[in-house]
Amino acid sequence: MPQLFNVVTPQEAWLRLEPHLSPIGRVETVPARDALGRVLAKDIAAPSDLPPFPRSAMDGYAVRAEDAYGASEGLPAYLRVVGEIAMGVPAGIGLASGEAALIHTGGMLPKNADAVVMIENTRDIDASTIEVTRPVAKGENVIQVGEDVEKDEMLLTSGSLIRPQDIGGLLALGITEVPVFQRVRVALISTGDELVPPEEEPRLGQIRNTNAYTLASLALRIGAVPLRLGIVKDNHEALRQAAVRGMREADIVVISAGSSMSTRDMTADVINSLGRPGVLVHGVSLKPGKPTILASVDGKPLFGLPGNPGSAMITFELFVTPCIYRLGGCRQLPRRTELQARLTRNIPSATGREDYVVVKLEERGGELYAEPIFGKSNLLFPLIKADGIAQVPLDRSGLESGEMVLVKVF
Amino acid sequence: MPQLFNVVTPQEAWLRLEPHLSPIGRVETVPARDALGRVLAKDIAAPSDLPPFPRSAMDGYAVRAEDAYGASEGLPAYLRVVGEIAMGVPAGIGLASGEAALIHTGGMLPKNADAVVMIENTRDIDASTIEVTRPVAKGENVIQVGEDVEKDEMLLTSGSLIRPQDIGGLLALGITEVPVFQRVRVALISTGDELVPPEEEPRLGQIRNTNAYTLASLALRIGAVPLRLGIVKDNHEALRQAAVRGMREADIVVISAGSSMSTRDMTADVINSLGRPGVLVHGVSLKPGKPTILASVDGKPLFGLPGNPGSAMITFELFVTPCIYRLGGCRQLPRRTELQARLTRNIPSATGREDYVVVKLEERGGELYAEPIFGKSNLLFPLIKADGIAQVPLDRSGLESGEMVLVKVF
Repeated sequence: MPQLFNVVTPQEAWLRLEPHLSPIGRVETVPARDALGRVLAKDIAAPSDLPPFPRSAMDGYAVRAEDAYGASEGLPAYLRVVGEIAMGVPAGIGLASGEAALIHTGGMLPKNADAVVMIENTRDIDASTIEVTRPVAKGENVIQVGEDVEKDEMLLTSGSLIRPQDIGGLLALGITEVPVFQRVRVALISTGDELVPPEEEPRLGQIRNTNAYTLASLALRIGAVPLRLGIVKDNHEALRQAAVRGMREADIVVISAGSSMSTRDMTADVINSLGRPGVLVHGVSLKPGKPTILASVDGKPLFGLPGNPGSAMITFELFVTPCIYRLGGCRQLPRRTELQARLTRNIPSATGREDYVVVKLEERGGELYAEPIFGKSNLLFPLIKADGIAQVPLDRSGLESGEMVLVKVF
Repeated sequence: MPQLFNVVTPQEAWLRLEPHLSPIGRVETVPARDALGRVLAKDIAAPSDLPPFPRSAMDGYAVRAEDAYGASEGLPAYLRVVGEIAMGVPAGIGLASGEAALIHTGGMLPKNADAVVMIENTRDIDASTIEVTRPVAKGENVIQVGEDVEKDEMLLTSGSLIRPQDIGGLLALGITEVPVFQRVRVALISTGDELVPPEEEPRLGQIRNTNAYTLASLALRIGAVPLRLGIVKDNHEALRQAAVRGMREADIVVISAGSSMSTRDMTADVINSLGRPGVLVHGVSLKPGKPTILASVDGKPLFGLPGNPGSAMITFELFVTPCIYRLGGCRQLPRRTELQARLTRNIPSATGREDYVVVKLEERGGELYAEPIFGKSNLLFPLIKADGIAQVPLDRSGLESGEMVLVKVF
């Protein structure tokens, strides 16, 4: 007999799970140069000023601004060139009144200089004299000590996802190692008496297990460590053993269940047998993805995802992905690639249900169109033909051809 | 004396480089399960039908549709249940007229059955009899042989970037290994007498090398292999030796040059000394990033990027990133995360120049705002404080506060 679902909205489902989620908080230290995509585990303040000395922002002449006061094409200021600032060494020169030093971008300003005249605003008169044809303000074309970042200024806060430029910033200050949260481990269990591993030739009635690999790739892509625990038979004890192993070895357990009601109920029973509080949500007003299970046992989240490829992928992205970020200590979910596109066909739906339809994106005449790919959610290939997913909101009874929709690129 | 740039637009710059780019074309075979983000090196067609047998899309009863013709709540059809289809084995049963078999989602349809009645539309009468209360069409709730994908149908074409669902699709058909293009190797050379490695304590006048690490991370993020060749001194022979090594070990050579005119000219001279055609573009109407060099020698692209962190990052993304995809055999650049946001301040610019301004994104009252972070392009920390880059198009003399702008998230 069909179990009566207590169906909740996707948002409500998340709100029921969320209070049970807490960051794993295990910290490890990695070289800053290899920290791309990792989550910073502590606030980092600048240990020193950057730059630590005044630098020229231009090629030109270091001067005392007052010496070029009022300079113009018609009435240039004449300055004596007392040397050239070599790169990478202290500017040995100090400027007296009326003196200038040739300087390159990034060079250290000599003592008493307070501005740089761009080379374009100078003319050579002889080997040791230049004309300055424009005045320069005090500090112009100079990067002051601490102008990039000041000592003790907050650089990056705990929970940031480390980007290429953040690595540059850390290294600029000599921070060559950073504490990051350990990667979140996600155990993936596939159930189904009909499943065989992909490398096996299925016999009549059997089908290759693919969800574990698609979901593992989704986890990997956002920096988690997938642990594929293989295929377990459709029986309570086998699934329970696999789930216990998942709880022991991973931070999140995902059971990609068979889609039949019996296996769904078994997944819920097994989860409830593991500990408290157990199943929090069993059934979400979502298409595809209705029979999704969200659960928590002893502080670890568990998910029972429907076995259909489309349902598994969409529910993973809706619930497991934010859970991975949360457990990984990531303060803010990175923005997904989302695009506005014009629907080419009606998408029927029902009010009170969030529908996801895979779409193909096409650019025609400079405009982006989303062509829905309809098909049973049991099918895998619509996901491959598609470029993304369009969402029909909960409160809409469908979307109309010609409407603009938000497409999450996948 | 300042070299006179022959400045071209960013688009023109790319068009001058593009004819010199050709995919590296080296192929290697990898397990399909590990192929995430790799570029497929040949077209892949389905070796067999999927599914290879008719499967039930629902939990219910496999029937002959004609036996439930006209069934209704008031006048149900009575069917004899002759068994249950076990998962993962051939359906041993064949249905005679008036017979049904219990079937689960994914189960193999028994012989002579042509439809599945959802369990919700049936009632048990006794141990071996059900009532069907709704008619069912031939083929309803059945996934036909080859419905997901037909034998010889094209699955994925050469040049596709492999996504999680593509891995699922390959494995579903037993394709456990795939030919992919080798990763593109990008040599990164930093020049500047003022540069020291990040782990060294800079002396007065020195600064830590960071561009090589930021650019390496940008390359890594899109699946390339960065080779950091270290810091070379600002002299022709040292740079030439490093460039020759880069040409030998990598597919693309990026020289993150000092920003002074002398080092820029030296980079161009060195590149021209390596072979033909040499420098194709020296100067792009871009801010920041004007002194960018695009070159090709003996079929390999070389880039001279300005040393300022912001310029280096922006010009890398504009020119080196698409070059990596092109050499990597990727047919279509993946879509970047781009968002529309409302500008909070004017951005001044000049017509005939493409300006990039880093912005911080803020959500206020459900709307997204882009706050420009102004600052010298020599600075690194504006890039760290920012969430993305807004572009002022070539034909605009600036953008106004309140305008909607396209922000590339970085």
